[in-house]
Amino acid sequence: MSQFDNVSVVKKANVYFDGKCISHTVQLPDGTKKSVGVILPSTLTFNTGVAEIMECVSGVCRYRIKGEDWKSSGAGQSFKVPGNSSFEIEVSGEPYHYVCHFA
Amino acid sequence: MSQFDNVSVVKKANVYFDGKCISHTVQLPDGTKKSVGVILPSTLTFNTGVAEIMECVSGVCRYRIKGEDWKSSGAGQSFKVPGNSSFEIEVSGEPYHYVCHFA
Repeated sequence: MSQFDNVSVVKKANVYFDGKCISHTVQLPDGTKKSVGVILPSTLTFNTGVAEIMECVSGVCRYRIKGEDWKSSGAGQSFKVPGNSSFEIEVSGEPYHYVCHFA
Repeated sequence: MSQFDNVSVVKKANVYFDGKCISHTVQLPDGTKKSVGVILPSTLTFNTGVAEIMECVSGVCRYRIKGEDWKSSGAGQSFKVPGNSSFEIEVSGEPYHYVCHFA
């Protein structure tokens, strides 16, 4: 699916790292919140509260979950980050488009 | 209203000017398309196909519609750009969050 249907979208974006990461919050009919976003070429570190699943919509990234090795993730692939952890993400070339699912 | 309800959201963002402007496309139940986006500090020129109304959700900008003078637009304010025209927009300091309505 290239889009979410029957959802609410918060008009104001979430801007992280001076705009290197920008997302909009989406709420599904069952109350579940997700975010749709973009990471521009950069290497960023994100801390997690709850566990997150990063689903790649377009582009590719390298990522390293705390305590693990660097891996790659491209369109149609996902990776899960535990809660109360962190991950580094490296994007080069094209923007990395994602959906973030909170678990 | 701080959000759109019962809409569809395209997961992949629209990235303009190397990421200085990033938006997501939203479709209302009646088929109307809008976009929710952010412009980071920069001065950009956009060309219009159909007429557009730029509604400021947060932040402030200066803008100049082709053939007119520079004006300002802040949260809660809107400006309309004719179709087949262009406008310059200047954002400094905080990001400018907007909803773009196509007329």
